[in-house]
Amino acid sequence: VPAVTIAVDAMGGDHAPDEIVVGAAEAARASGVEVVLVGATDRLQTALTDAGLALGGTLSLVEAPEYVQMDEAPLAALRRKPKASIKVACELLKAGRVQAVVSAGHTGASLVAARTVLGLLPGVERAALAVTVPTATGSAVLIDAGANVDCRPEHLVQFGLMGAAYARVALGRDEPSVGLLSIGEEAGKGPDVVRDAHARLAQTRLRFIGNIEARDIFTGLADVIVCDGFAGNVVLKVGEGVAVLFEALLRQELMASPTSRLGAWLSRPAFQQFRRRVDDAERGAAPLVGVAGLVLVGHGRSSSRAVRNAVATAVQLVEAELVERTKRALSA
Amino acid sequence: VPAVTIAVDAMGGDHAPDEIVVGAAEAARASGVEVVLVGATDRLQTALTDAGLALGGTLSLVEAPEYVQMDEAPLAALRRKPKASIKVACELLKAGRVQAVVSAGHTGASLVAARTVLGLLPGVERAALAVTVPTATGSAVLIDAGANVDCRPEHLVQFGLMGAAYARVALGRDEPSVGLLSIGEEAGKGPDVVRDAHARLAQTRLRFIGNIEARDIFTGLADVIVCDGFAGNVVLKVGEGVAVLFEALLRQELMASPTSRLGAWLSRPAFQQFRRRVDDAERGAAPLVGVAGLVLVGHGRSSSRAVRNAVATAVQLVEAELVERTKRALSA
Repeated sequence: VPAVTIAVDAMGGDHAPDEIVVGAAEAARASGVEVVLVGATDRLQTALTDAGLALGGTLSLVEAPEYVQMDEAPLAALRRKPKASIKVACELLKAGRVQAVVSAGHTGASLVAARTVLGLLPGVERAALAVTVPTATGSAVLIDAGANVDCRPEHLVQFGLMGAAYARVALGRDEPSVGLLSIGEEAGKGPDVVRDAHARLAQTRLRFIGNIEARDIFTGLADVIVCDGFAGNVVLKVGEGVAVLFEALLRQELMASPTSRLGAWLSRPAFQQFRRRVDDAERGAAPLVGVAGLVLVGHGRSSSRAVRNAVATAVQLVEAELVERTKRALSA
Repeated sequence: VPAVTIAVDAMGGDHAPDEIVVGAAEAARASGVEVVLVGATDRLQTALTDAGLALGGTLSLVEAPEYVQMDEAPLAALRRKPKASIKVACELLKAGRVQAVVSAGHTGASLVAARTVLGLLPGVERAALAVTVPTATGSAVLIDAGANVDCRPEHLVQFGLMGAAYARVALGRDEPSVGLLSIGEEAGKGPDVVRDAHARLAQTRLRFIGNIEARDIFTGLADVIVCDGFAGNVVLKVGEGVAVLFEALLRQELMASPTSRLGAWLSRPAFQQFRRRVDDAERGAAPLVGVAGLVLVGHGRSSSRAVRNAVATAVQLVEAELVERTKRALSA
């Protein structure tokens, strides 16, 4: 079996390049994976040396002297910086030297670089970020999770088609159910854009189950939840915020008496297992579906573990031929 | 001190009228509160008898033979049903027979009835639902929590002014900080409506701290979080959904071994205390600010405890003169 090669944007993310380099090097030790680190090679070499790591074998470098910072406007930044790491990584994919790109940097910059260098699949107007979220019964796909803030109804329909293609691969469902995020279950509930999208989704060949409320994202009512990128980002960030708040409040309460402190100590393995189930670092990154090439975006706060998992997810999606499947789902 | 009188829409909510009647009767036993139950009086009389409760003293009935059901379009329903319980309750407030209205029914119907019967405060274009949410440092006000799905920038500015007035009363802050919900901290991030609102909020006399991300709602970064009703509803429902999911997953993990089962048993009081802190039934209801009269909306799933707390919250807001204060905040 020929190894899959993944380009990792080593300059993107709050802990870049050190955590990225360590995670990528760990991933490169897995069988069947080659990793190309893209960034300022002298800086990456220092990061590798500091971590006691070496190049060679399945880990290599490609020079990209510039990168897009988190507070830059992506379009202008990429025009100003033709050698930005995310752009160079996408060019490696375009040239066939790698099969996927992973970045924990600026989501908007990844989107613009992917769209400009690789283009979109036939008929796609907007690429979207498709993430998996934990539910009471397993996982669900949320699309768009933050790539497009202002959406038209036809974009939401495409998100439904692309999200279903991703759910077949990521959740292993043959006929994934698709729900539309709104503020009430009835077809007439929600903003104009959502009401229009509802009527259009009902005309597709998708297993469309109608509107679902945000509460039911986590009950596992739908395999795919369609929304614009603003709402999708709010869903993810509220989930994150509530998780952090709950742990903090629960810890305060558990520490308040000797009995509950003992209880908390005895329950530690359960808490650890619980944290693993809800931790988004487990998958590491989410694909920008609709792009004519596989580009994955990780959390800006990605740790080395998240990067390692992101590379593993990228390999799975290459092997599952996600891009080809998405293309077929859109043309059907 | 003359008693405050609160009208309770006894027909609205998933558990109406039985839970509503019990909660209202409990509230009427508190000193300084009179409660008027509004609904189909024969049905209410039966509910009272079934619960072993009696009328008289501080608990009375007012007849309203109709009510708006959850799946009805509010405008049309209220036109068809001039004797709907929420409308009759608002008329009691308009006539000065009560000082506030509490309903656990259809939020949209409460909004339309309040607007039509009581009118809006001078200069207000849209009334909004202002709810308090738990944070790591106490509470924050989220406005709009679901009354208006499609908003213009000027509506968001009014939500900021009205939310700050409510935060002064509900949180006891003299100079509440106001944040605008978006998908990035920078002023340029977010949909067009949010970017425009950002510029306008910066021109007001509010202590505007700029955009905040959904994650930071729960860290207590801002005292008031401004958003449209679609996003606000998503924030609340995701919070609810994640809370339920966490409890379920944590319970599964805690039951998985004898040691952690013992741990969970020892920690029970801590879990109960934790639940109380994050439970939205604690406050019971949230005001529709911007209305020329005090109307509070509770959760559709309100229990008798939530109704009792909603009446207590209504009394507090009457005594704090929330409507007068909101009016002053808007004219300043």
